[in-house]
Formats: sequence, structure tokens, C-alpha cells
Amino acid sequence: MDVVTLNTFLETEFPQWSTSTGASVTDVTPEGVICRLPFNESQLRPGGTVSGPTMMGLADTAMYAAVLSRIGPVALAVTTNLNINFMRKPEPRATTATCRLLKLGKRLAIGDVAIVSEGDTDMVAHATVTYSIPLQG
Amino acid sequence: MDVVTLNTFLETEFPQWSTSTGASVTDVTPEGVICRLPFNESQLRPGGTVSGPTMMGLADTAMYAAVLSRIGPVALAVTTNLNINFMRKPEPRATTATCRLLKLGKRLAIGDVAIVSEGDTDMVAHATVTYSIPLQG
Amino acid sequence: MDVVTLNTFLETEFPQWSTSTGASVTDVTPEGVICRLPFNESQLRPGGTVSGPTMMGLADTAMYAAVLSRIGPVALAVTTNLNINFMRKPEPRATTATCRLLKLGKRLAIGDVAIVSEGDTDMVAHATVTYSIPLQG
Amino acid sequence: MDVVTLNTFLETEFPQWSTSTGASVTDVTPEGVICRLPFNESQLRPGGTVSGPTMMGLADTAMYAAVLSRIGPVALAVTTNLNINFMRKPEPRATTATCRLLKLGKRLAIGDVAIVSEGDTDMVAHATVTYSIPLQG
Repeated sequence: MDVVTLNTFLETEFPQWSTSTGASVTDVTPEGVICRLPFNESQLRPGGTVSGPTMMGLADTAMYAAVLSRIGPVALAVTTNLNINFMRKPEPRATTATCRLLKLGKRLAIGDVAIVSEGDTDMVAHATVTYSIPLQG
Repeated sequence: MDVVTLNTFLETEFPQWSTSTGASVTDVTPEGVICRLPFNESQLRPGGTVSGPTMMGLADTAMYAAVLSRIGPVALAVTTNLNINFMRKPEPRATTATCRLLKLGKRLAIGDVAIVSEGDTDMVAHATVTYSIPLQG
Repeated sequence: MDVVTLNTFLETEFPQWSTSTGASVTDVTPEGVICRLPFNESQLRPGGTVSGPTMMGLADTAMYAAVLSRIGPVALAVTTNLNINFMRKPEPRATTATCRLLKLGKRLAIGDVAIVSEGDTDMVAHATVTYSIPLQG
Repeated sequence: MDVVTLNTFLETEFPQWSTSTGASVTDVTPEGVICRLPFNESQLRPGGTVSGPTMMGLADTAMYAAVLSRIGPVALAVTTNLNINFMRKPEPRATTATCRLLKLGKRLAIGDVAIVSEGDTDMVAHATVTYSIPLQG
């Protein structure tokens, strides 16, 4: 799946996510995908930073998009494990999530996601995500 | 902090979370707290289950509430690590999160969170969460 | 499998582990198993505490034993994910690992492991471990 | 610290690790360090692969070496969290661990570690490790 079909699929299957947050896939790369989350005051938490759950959702979606970009529109792929470290306070602007597939098996996909404030190089958060892929019939 | 003051604090500091999801603290226990998330169609993902990010947010908030219940209203406590395993498809009804504080130090708190569909005993998800506590001045 | 057959199996299949560390299963419980690791100066690290890798190995073995106690001697079950938080400096004495199975499916088992210094109640470390179970033929 | 002083320090402070496994730091890189673990039949587990605890110990040591390479010989830096995903069966030969520091603060360091069978590019395991750094006096 390319950028356009991925975004169309995510908007259809997860209207809550993309419509309410404005998140989208911006690139399909040789290693995975890149997603972008616009800055939105409703995601803020005390201290003025993008909230943890917002970044967890972004990491999860980036990995989902990376899996779909390789295997096609399998809506029922599900997260089985997500581990995230929060490292720095994000800036009050858009965030970018770069997902790299570390393993893409028939039943299991593992990837990591680097989250930065747009234009920065220092990571705000780093996640490792495992998806279970249902048997296709 | 007791149940009423915790919920008032969360509604004030995180209006996005409690207002949009209806989540609340229902008990302060000797080990931590119990939270409840009402069933809400907007949290669903393909397959009709409560979405992963919704459960991650619930786990994170339950741990935050557990920390606050012991140290008082410290809005700037922040998550540094969250690890979650998704084990079963949740039922289409309310979910309950039971947080147990495993360590409460001056600078760091660690707890785990068991998430079940209300009325069940089998875990839907299990999370381990670390919070960093700012120095009080 | 009971305590005696579990220890015999572990000693045969993992002689490195049980012979070199003296670790053993002490109980099979309704939730999982309990293991014990004797104190051994060779496991120490600077500061005089039981080393992290020693506790990781103990957590991994406890979960393996818990899985075997339910499904029998399946040597090829393998760890797919392990997350561990170190919370306190262990005492210079034996450590005890209590493993609780959170999910035991046909293909996947998830459990958590509480590690304490023998006789204490405060956790030294807490791990969550996922095993992949091969199809039996 | 450079490669020679790192290896001397690790052999002195962790004789159990380097003497018994033959592990060593081979490079200090701009991002972190690279470590190498020789193949050793005593590390094997059923199926003929390098055992999980061996790779966990390697990941932990690689991160420790990466931290020391930046802050000098602080023996009391301790692991607070380690998350590892096992992705493929390692080959029966040496393994290489490439550690990348993601954050190096005054109190906390976070890095990830990619483990491969020597000469391969596909990851055998991927770990994320957090160290707590004691205040220097």
C-alpha cells in the first residue's frame, strides 16, 4: 500500500484516530513508514506537552501503517505488546514518528518507532511494538 | 487523596481524558487504585473491540491516579516507561483497571495495571508503568 | 508436571542454568510456580548485589517452568519478549521468583514474575514474559 | 573511555561476565558501542541456539559499556528497565551487539541494542535498556 491508500484505509477503519487527531502517513520508506501528527491543543497535558497517550497512539498507528504497507489492508492485525520510553518533553508543535520494521513474519511483526518534534533530531519517545497478523484465508 | 479529590483533580488537569472518555477512579485501595472506563462506541476499532490506545491511556491514568493518591496533587509527575501486553479481545462493555504500586520512591514510582472487562476475571491487558516524580520545592 | 519432574527436566535440558546457579522450582501453585535461586558470590556485581542478568535469567526460567507445568515438557517453547523493572537492591541472600500465568493460549503464554529477597515482601524486580509455544504434532 | 580501558574496567568489575563468556567491546562509535560475544557451547539452549539470558546479559553489558564510554568508570550505574524482543533463532556462531544511546541525561540513560549473528544484518534480538546514574560527589 502506498501513502494515499494507507491514509484512505486508516481514515475509513479508524475515523476516530485520523479525523480527531489529523494524523497521517507521510512516507512509505524501505524500512517502514513515517507518520505526522499535527499540533493540537486538545492533546496537551499539564506542563504544555503532547500527552503520553497521544504519543502511544501515534506509535501504535505508525507500526500498524508499516505492517499494512507490506501486507495490504488487513484490518484485524492487532497489537500484542507495546513498550515505550518517554525521553524528553515534546515541543508544542507537530510530532513525527518514524517506524522501522525489525521483523515481518507470517504471524508476527515487530518494529520500533522514533518520535521527534518536527524538525528536531533528539528523540522525544522511542517505542517497540509487536503486532499479531491473522491467518489469511 | 481520596476518590472524590482524585476525580476532581483529573477532570481539572486532564479534561480531555475524563470528559471525553468518562473514565473515573472508583476506589483507592491499600495497594493502589481502581479505575473504570465506560463503554463508548467512539473507542472501538475494527473487530468491535476497545482500541489499544484507549487501554494504554487507561493504564497510564490509573497509574497516575495511584501515584497521586499517595503523594498528593503533583500535576507534573510524568510517565517515563510503559509496557503493555494485550491478551484477549475485550468485551463490548465497560473496562476496569486495577493498579498496584510496586515501588513508590521519592523520584520514581513503578506499578502494574490489570485491565479486565467489567465483571470478568481474565485479563484483557496487563501494563507496567514507571512515573518520574519531580522534586517538590 | 510437578516440582520433581520440572526440576529433572530443567537440569537435563538446561544443565548450564541449574547446575551453575543451583536454581530450582520449589512450588507449583494454582497461578504458576515459585522458584528459588541460592545466594552465590559469583552472581554478584559492583555494590555487592545479585546482578541484573542473573535476575533476568531467573525470571525467564520461572516463566518457562510455569508454562511447562501446564503443557508438559516442550523444550522448544521460546521467549519472545521479556520486560523487567529493577526496583530495589537485592539483599546478599537467596532470591525467590513467583510466576503467575496471565494467559496460556495454544500458541502464546504471558506471565509476570515477582522477585524478592527470600523472606522479604518488597519486590526487588518485576518482569513480564511472553513465550511462544510451538505447534505440537 | 576507549575500547581498551572499557574492556579492562569490565574485566575488573565484572570478572564473571567477561572471563566466563569472552565478551568484549570492539568499537566505541559516535552513537554508542559495539560488543562481541564469541560462540560458546555452554551458552546453548535446546534447539542449539544462544540462550535468551545470554543475549539479555549481552544487551545489558553493551548498554553499560555505552554509558561508561561517555561518563567514565562509574561502577554503580544500575539497570532500571530492560525490554527485549527475540526475533529469530541465532546462528551457532559469534553474536554482535550494537548499542545506540538515545538519551544520556545526568541521572538517566536510555539506549537500544541490536543483536545479530556475526556477519548477518537481520536482527536476532532488539533490546531497550534504561540505566540510572548515581550522583557523582
